[in-house]
Amino acid sequence: MTKNFSIPQSVQWKDDHILLLDQQKLPLETVYVELRNIKDVWDAIITLKVRGAPAIGLTAAFGLAMAANSYEELDLTSFHDRLNKDREYLASSRPTAVNLAWALDRLVNKVKNAISVNEAKTTLTHEAIQIQAEDEEVCRQIGINALSLFNDNDKILTICNAGSIATARYGTALAPFYLAKDLGKRLQVFASETRPVLQGARLTTWELMQADVDVTLITDNMAAHTISTKGINAIIVGADRITANGDTANKIGTYNLAILAKAFDIPFYVAAPLSTFDPSLSSGQLIPIEERDAREITHIFGQQIAPAGVKVFNPAFDVTPNELITAIITEKGVLQGNYTEEIKQLFAEKTV
Amino acid sequence: MTKNFSIPQSVQWKDDHILLLDQQKLPLETVYVELRNIKDVWDAIITLKVRGAPAIGLTAAFGLAMAANSYEELDLTSFHDRLNKDREYLASSRPTAVNLAWALDRLVNKVKNAISVNEAKTTLTHEAIQIQAEDEEVCRQIGINALSLFNDNDKILTICNAGSIATARYGTALAPFYLAKDLGKRLQVFASETRPVLQGARLTTWELMQADVDVTLITDNMAAHTISTKGINAIIVGADRITANGDTANKIGTYNLAILAKAFDIPFYVAAPLSTFDPSLSSGQLIPIEERDAREITHIFGQQIAPAGVKVFNPAFDVTPNELITAIITEKGVLQGNYTEEIKQLFAEKTV
Repeated sequence: MTKNFSIPQSVQWKDDHILLLDQQKLPLETVYVELRNIKDVWDAIITLKVRGAPAIGLTAAFGLAMAANSYEELDLTSFHDRLNKDREYLASSRPTAVNLAWALDRLVNKVKNAISVNEAKTTLTHEAIQIQAEDEEVCRQIGINALSLFNDNDKILTICNAGSIATARYGTALAPFYLAKDLGKRLQVFASETRPVLQGARLTTWELMQADVDVTLITDNMAAHTISTKGINAIIVGADRITANGDTANKIGTYNLAILAKAFDIPFYVAAPLSTFDPSLSSGQLIPIEERDAREITHIFGQQIAPAGVKVFNPAFDVTPNELITAIITEKGVLQGNYTEEIKQLFAEKTV
Repeated sequence: MTKNFSIPQSVQWKDDHILLLDQQKLPLETVYVELRNIKDVWDAIITLKVRGAPAIGLTAAFGLAMAANSYEELDLTSFHDRLNKDREYLASSRPTAVNLAWALDRLVNKVKNAISVNEAKTTLTHEAIQIQAEDEEVCRQIGINALSLFNDNDKILTICNAGSIATARYGTALAPFYLAKDLGKRLQVFASETRPVLQGARLTTWELMQADVDVTLITDNMAAHTISTKGINAIIVGADRITANGDTANKIGTYNLAILAKAFDIPFYVAAPLSTFDPSLSSGQLIPIEERDAREITHIFGQQIAPAGVKVFNPAFDVTPNELITAIITEKGVLQGNYTEEIKQLFAEKTV
C-alpha cells in the first residue's frame, strides 16, 4: 500500500462546519474534530486544539461566519447585535491573541454596510475564505523567497513549529521544505525538539513526515554537535515579533541557535510575514518576555521529571539581536543588511 | 521541623553490607538499598542503580571485599581462585566501565602476596575504603581549586550530573558548590536539564537541594537567554575524557554551552580528575562518539513524545575543542594556557 503524502492543513472550511486538526493529540493520534457551532469553536481555541496565530485567527473567522449563517433573525439591526455579541464571545477565548481579534474585526467591518442579512452572511463566509487564501499565499511567497537561499542537498536546522498547521498552509520557516518537494530540490531538515513544550518533537516532525519531507529529530542541546558533524548548512526559524531594528522574539532556544550559527559561520534566517513586525518598538529589549508555569519544565505529559519544589526559570521566548540574523524572509522579499532602513521602507510602501 | 541538609553519598560501606542510593528512582523517590551479597552488587550495577565512573568502581570494590569476607575456605590458593572468579563476575556487570576494572584489579593486586586469608580479607576492605577516601579527597581538591575561580554571589551554569552521587563525595563540577557552603561563599547554580536522559533535572537539582545549595532548573535551550538575562558569571562542566591537547568529551550539550560562554565572554571551566585524561589520544577528533537508542529521545519515562518511526540522531557525547575551554580544573591544580604542554608536564610529574 502506498501512503498518500500531503501537506497537512489544520483548519478546513466544510460549508456547514469547520474540520479542525486536534493539535493537542499529536503526535500520538491524528484526530480531526468537527466544529458545528460557536461553542465548539470557542472550546477548541481555549483548550489549545488549535495553535499558531494565523490558524487561531482563521478558526475564529470561520467560527463567526458559521455562527452568523445560523442566525434566523431577519432584520439587519438584530443581525448586527448578535454578530457583535458572538464576536466578543469568540474574542474572549484567547484575549492575548492579536490575530484572533484582527480576523474577527475584519469580518465585522466587512458587513457594516451590508444591505441585507443574506448578503451579510455570504460576505462573512467569503471574507473568512479570503483570509485563509491570503495567509496561504503569504506563506507560499515566504517559502519561495526562503527556497532561493537554499541549495540542493542542503541540511537545515529549525526549532519549534513555524509550520503548515500553525497557518492556513505551508507555514513560515517550514514553507520552503514543502515547496522544495514540488520543485524537486532535495532538502534535509533537522528538527530541534524544543523543550519545554516539545513543538519540534511533537508537531514539526509529524507535519513534515505527512508530506514525506526528510526530517531528523534531535534534542535542543545536540545542535552544536549536529551542525559540526552532520554539516548543517543553515538554520531557519519563525518569529513571534520583530521590532523596528530587526531584533526577533521567538520560541525559547532560538537565541542559542543564532549564536551557534555565527560560531559555525552558517546563515541564520528568520521567516515571517509582515504581520509579525512591530515597528512601534525600536528594539527587542522592549519586548516583554512571558514566564510560564514551572510545571511545563518539571512535568512532561503529566510525568514528574524533577524534584518536587525545585526552583525553575521558564521563559517562553528569547530575543535574538539583529546582528545575529543573516536575513529576514518575508512575503515581500528578503531583508538582509540594514534592517532599520529596510523595515521602515517596507512599511512606508505598505501604507502608500 | 528543620530539615537536615547534607551532601548525599551514593555508596556507603556498612561493614557487612553496602548502602547504595538507587539513582534510578530519583528524583521521585529517595531509596537506599542494602547490597548484602555479590549478586546484589552485580544487579545494582547492571540495572544502573549506581552511575558515575568513580561511584561504580567504588561499589564494585566494596562488593568484592564484601564477597571475600564471606569466603569460608581457609587455604590461600582457594581464596585467590574464588577472588579471581568474583572479580571476573563483577567486571562483567559493565564491561566498558574502565573505573570498575581498575578498582577490582587494584584490590586483587593488593592481596597477591598476603600471607593469610584473614590478612587478605582485612586488606581488601581497607583498600576499598582507601579508594573511597582517595576519590573523596580528589574531588575535594578539585572543589577547592574550582572555588578559587569563583566570586561571592556568582551565578554558575552546569550541565548533566558531575556530582557527589557520581563519585565518593563532592563530585567534580559540583564540588565547589558544596565547599562554598562550608566556607560561607554564596553561589547560585543553574542546572541545565540535560536531555535526553535528564541527569540535570533528575539528579543535579536533587543532590544540590539535599545540601541546601541554591539551584534553579532550566531546559537546555534556555541557556543563552539565562546567561544574558540572569547574568551568569561562569559555566562549569565535568568530563568523560580529555585528550592530550585538552579537547574534552562530555555529555551532549557541553559543546553548545562552551560556544555560548565564548559569545557572552564568560569563562568555561572543565572540572575533572587526572584519571579522566587520556594522553594517548592527541586530539578530540579521535574520540569515538557513541550513538544511543532513538527511544531515549522519542520517549520520556516511557511516554512517547514524537511520531512513531521518526528518524532520530542521538549522540551521547560531544567534544569541546580546547580553544573554548578557559581552564581545566584538576586535583593537582588549574590548567589554563597551553594544554598540550601542561598535560604533558602533569603526567611526566605523575610517573616520576
